Amino acid sequence: MTGPGAPQALSGGRSGPAALRPLLDEALAGLDAGARLRGGPIAPGGPGETTRQVRQVLDDPAPDSTALRRLTELLAYGAADPADPACAAHLHCPPLAVAVAADLAVSALNPSQDSWDQAPAATALETELLAELAALVGFPPAAAAGVLTSGGTESNLMGLMLARDRVLGGAVELDGLPAGRRPRILASAAAHFSVQRAAALLGLGERAVLTVPVDRDQRMDADALAAARAGAVRAGETPVAVVATAGTTDTGAIDPLHRCADLARRYGARLHVDAAYGGGALFSGRLAPLLDGIARADSVSLDFHKLGWQPAAAGVFLVRHRESYASLARRAAYLNPADDEQAGYPSLLGYSLRTTRRPDAFKLAVTLRTLGRAGLGALVDACHDLARHAAAAVRAEPALEGQGEPVLTTVLLRYRPADPDPAAADLVNAELRRQLLRTGTAVVGRTEIPGDGPGRVRLKLTLLNPHTTPADVDRLLAEIVRHGREVEFRYSAHP
Amino acid sequence: MTGPGAPQALSGGRSGPAALRPLLDEALAGLDAGARLRGGPIAPGGPGETTRQVRQVLDDPAPDSTALRRLTELLAYGAADPADPACAAHLHCPPLAVAVAADLAVSALNPSQDSWDQAPAATALETELLAELAALVGFPPAAAAGVLTSGGTESNLMGLMLARDRVLGGAVELDGLPAGRRPRILASAAAHFSVQRAAALLGLGERAVLTVPVDRDQRMDADALAAARAGAVRAGETPVAVVATAGTTDTGAIDPLHRCADLARRYGARLHVDAAYGGGALFSGRLAPLLDGIARADSVSLDFHKLGWQPAAAGVFLVRHRESYASLARRAAYLNPADDEQAGYPSLLGYSLRTTRRPDAFKLAVTLRTLGRAGLGALVDACHDLARHAAAAVRAEPALEGQGEPVLTTVLLRYRPADPDPAAADLVNAELRRQLLRTGTAVVGRTEIPGDGPGRVRLKLTLLNPHTTPADVDRLLAEIVRHGREVEFRYSAHP
Repeated sequence: MTGPGAPQALSGGRSGPAALRPLLDEALAGLDAGARLRGGPIAPGGPGETTRQVRQVLDDPAPDSTALRRLTELLAYGAADPADPACAAHLHCPPLAVAVAADLAVSALNPSQDSWDQAPAATALETELLAELAALVGFPPAAAAGVLTSGGTESNLMGLMLARDRVLGGAVELDGLPAGRRPRILASAAAHFSVQRAAALLGLGERAVLTVPVDRDQRMDADALAAARAGAVRAGETPVAVVATAGTTDTGAIDPLHRCADLARRYGARLHVDAAYGGGALFSGRLAPLLDGIARADSVSLDFHKLGWQPAAAGVFLVRHRESYASLARRAAYLNPADDEQAGYPSLLGYSLRTTRRPDAFKLAVTLRTLGRAGLGALVDACHDLARHAAAAVRAEPALEGQGEPVLTTVLLRYRPADPDPAAADLVNAELRRQLLRTGTAVVGRTEIPGDGPGRVRLKLTLLNPHTTPADVDRLLAEIVRHGREVEFRYSAHP
Repeated sequence: MTGPGAPQALSGGRSGPAALRPLLDEALAGLDAGARLRGGPIAPGGPGETTRQVRQVLDDPAPDSTALRRLTELLAYGAADPADPACAAHLHCPPLAVAVAADLAVSALNPSQDSWDQAPAATALETELLAELAALVGFPPAAAAGVLTSGGTESNLMGLMLARDRVLGGAVELDGLPAGRRPRILASAAAHFSVQRAAALLGLGERAVLTVPVDRDQRMDADALAAARAGAVRAGETPVAVVATAGTTDTGAIDPLHRCADLARRYGARLHVDAAYGGGALFSGRLAPLLDGIARADSVSLDFHKLGWQPAAAGVFLVRHRESYASLARRAAYLNPADDEQAGYPSLLGYSLRTTRRPDAFKLAVTLRTLGRAGLGALVDACHDLARHAAAAVRAEPALEGQGEPVLTTVLLRYRPADPDPAAADLVNAELRRQLLRTGTAVVGRTEIPGDGPGRVRLKLTLLNPHTTPADVDRLLAEIVRHGREVEFRYSAHP
């Protein structure tokens, strides 16, 4: 039962590597076969077809050793592959092969960072890496602290939880709060929805998030922030945090970080900077100045599974002062007894909302040591160049309409039908996007620009593949126009 | 810059598998070298030594292509390897090689389950797998719903959040709650600390958790539960949830699930069953009856990175009725616009607290299709047999003292020094455990049994390696005795 070829073979120990080798060959063969069968960025057919295919493979009765290969082929065939230049919808990056290989080592050894004796080297490695990332942000590395997270949503939650707990005092029991201390969070209209979700989870209610208007470039209006804060105080509320976004999901807009920091400091609120998207720009000499002021934040979110080419998850949460973590401290007799800590055994338990925790820092450390900060910066610049090319190409194409100059690597656009009715444009753009998916032609994003009524639907290219060429982008835009015309014709023939 | 051998090569697309192959060879070579160098369950030396080694490797100046191999060797050397029979401290399992190979495919393709167009096959696959797991628990598969999570901590949080929101009404704003609606959670004294952490995160405060006494087998006392609930109601509080544990972290004790379900139903509270540890017993024909009653829960936590041999994370959260998820529903224009859903594009966004989400279901689906439920059950039984052997061996060894019969795969024990002072026994057991770590001999767990004062420290073996033999367990116990004697002698010589 224990041979390396047996289905019960383990990935660790002395025989782990030998047990893994043939299985990795199976997985690679499945990935290869699935990618070839798919051919393009996504398999044609749509959700119903995918579900049928999955059921067919899963319904196979007896368990057997071909499952790994068959299911991997299915996963690869049924992927929206961000490594394909025509897959450019979301902040869903194509990972670097070296990061993926590093992540394999983590899976094989399965360290868990809730206690040192489950992850000795991984504990030290995360601590060192976080000090490097703190320096990248401009936090004092010796005072800063943080943790790897599942992504911006968890990092934003942590920032807001610590802000709530600091301003309201240690043991928060919201249901016992005196009136007049209702906590409020200030974030722009273009901030990520995870801010509202965090407020709900934290027991503050989504309405605790006061939405600050944005300027026409989707940046928070700092004067409006000051006014919103003053209004809250007049209403007897307590603004506990300002969330500034460094790279909004839809346009990459970066809020005025220095002004946000000035206002937060003056009011005694915490400044949390959501740099889940924009944080990767810190690697680029050209783009890093856009994030000037981030070092003044109390806490930040960074996601290296966005502009960082890591497989998910590679989120990072950092605080400028480790004291901010006070309310998350926790002693568990089975994980971090006091006398073990006195004897020098470190514990990361109080830095995370999780208990079991995979060392997602490892792949990022390997990537940084393989490419260097400059190597990652070059990838960021390549994507930024692509976005600028795409925006220019959109401007040059009469059938398309653009939406400003890209800040990071995202381009908003829409197909412009002959019918001037804005509702018609929404219908055509939404359907052309689905048609691109259904035909396996392309995966482009979709969103809505702020405001009311029809005419808000936009297509979105999130360019995160540094190997995509300008010619690839041109082909993708040509497909959008071609399918737009087809959908428009169909709708005008059968309205 | 784009060749498969280049450091910037991607893991996806047509050239991904070829780019990955040499890098996986590097990772395997690093794993092999690190495991050989380590030799045993953990490297000798302790935290200071590990940190020095990590700094030495990370401080290497210029980035280069040897980083993957060097850092992987470091990670493997500095691992506490659960595949070694002498590493038996925590619910930290040695993963199956087939699950690790499956996880590689996920990393390479990097699907993200926050929208269908980032993860077509993965979306369908998770949905199907969750229906299978719902059936395993006894939930009606067509009505149930759920999501993969980072572990029991996140799953418990979700269960308690949904209980809070259901009982208190949709848009929770705790700071505006009228007195007399203070939400309370009932959990046993042996429940996992993540229950208290969830209460704090949810804005209820840790004191919202009312601790119900346990019997001498660490099971919740159902009469005490009824009394605690009645006391809360008299105090004008609202018990929103009962948390029953199916497999406590320290002893594997399983609360009386039917009685908990009866009481929760009678009181209109939600029943959340934390089966993060015990859930794996559902695969075993022999042990599954211990969890009888779990099907009556409103929600459950299962962790297949414990009794399930998956690399972390493989947590599962399930609800019996998908309507329970109401308060987490969320519409985001860039992820799940209404007309896309009408057109048949499914969205899993409302099932998770996260946005970006790696398909952790995939490795579990591959494992189930490779070994089958019975194959996994055999692994569970093998670990249960080991625990029974260990408990018998402890009873037979006069220098050791046991603590009841194992329920699942965990055994509590302590070294019995000649000095009858309970404080002396605590010191010796704590130090002997650190000495086992420091000398690279063994990784055994440590905890404290409930109660006050000294004499509470226990050593813990969590036996999760199905390939460990009874002779391995005997050797491990002999080392505990040998080091216990040495520490006792040292302490009595230099008290």
